[in-house]
Amino acid sequence: MTATGPTLLYAVKQVELAVRAHLDELLRPTGCTVPQWTALTVLSRREGLTGAELARNAFVSPQAMGDLLAALERGRWITRTPDPAHGRRVLIGLSDEGRRLLATVGPGADAVEQRMVDGFDPDEQAALRAMLNRCRTNLVS
Amino acid sequence: MTATGPTLLYAVKQVELAVRAHLDELLRPTGCTVPQWTALTVLSRREGLTGAELARNAFVSPQAMGDLLAALERGRWITRTPDPAHGRRVLIGLSDEGRRLLATVGPGADAVEQRMVDGFDPDEQAALRAMLNRCRTNLVS
Repeated sequence: MTATGPTLLYAVKQVELAVRAHLDELLRPTGCTVPQWTALTVLSRREGLTGAELARNAFVSPQAMGDLLAALERGRWITRTPDPAHGRRVLIGLSDEGRRLLATVGPGADAVEQRMVDGFDPDEQAALRAMLNRCRTNLVS
Repeated sequence: MTATGPTLLYAVKQVELAVRAHLDELLRPTGCTVPQWTALTVLSRREGLTGAELARNAFVSPQAMGDLLAALERGRWITRTPDPAHGRRVLIGLSDEGRRLLATVGPGADAVEQRMVDGFDPDEQAALRAMLNRCRTNLVS
């Protein structure tokens, strides 16, 4: 290790923490936490996931997913419906309340993103997105 | 908000979560958590911080910092010394044990970083670093 540690990991973490501070503030009035909101945004991309699939997509451990789902149910932000194709499997989706939460929070979250890339031209934004996607693919492959 | 939400925030979060999964695994045998290790890496960059300064630099809330410092003390990874310049102020530094922990974990953390940027040429790595730093500056300014 260099004296200062792995600097790109640190840079990613610092950006994420700065994003998180803004999202914490944005979400505070809703009673939804950032990990809960992250799971809801995953569900908004692909509905009808099993808990295990949601855990994998939201990078939550299977143990933590139980608590997270319980909190999402308490907030009435999700639905659980039996999978028509597999009798014993339960699929998780967004409730109307969950959709409303995402719609309420969305403009504020967009504003955080706009603030993050203030001064980036469209090519730079695309380059950042592409590099982040490559990083993620490298890490999960 | 677009149907899929703020995609760059999501991309940052996904990279951070993937990094975190690797760091969790790396740190598990040490008993140190990722937030604790992050605080120690902050101290390795700049020693002799007050709790408030460390909280600010590690993006931890002042309330959470109390628990974090208690955990770091239980692990014997930090020292607390009175600030010679201000009688009532206590400065936090790395203990020898803390330095050893960072040295032990360092090569594994470097390997996570290398894996993350696998296939990036040096210019791309520099571009990623520069863009992440711009993002952070935008968010904290």
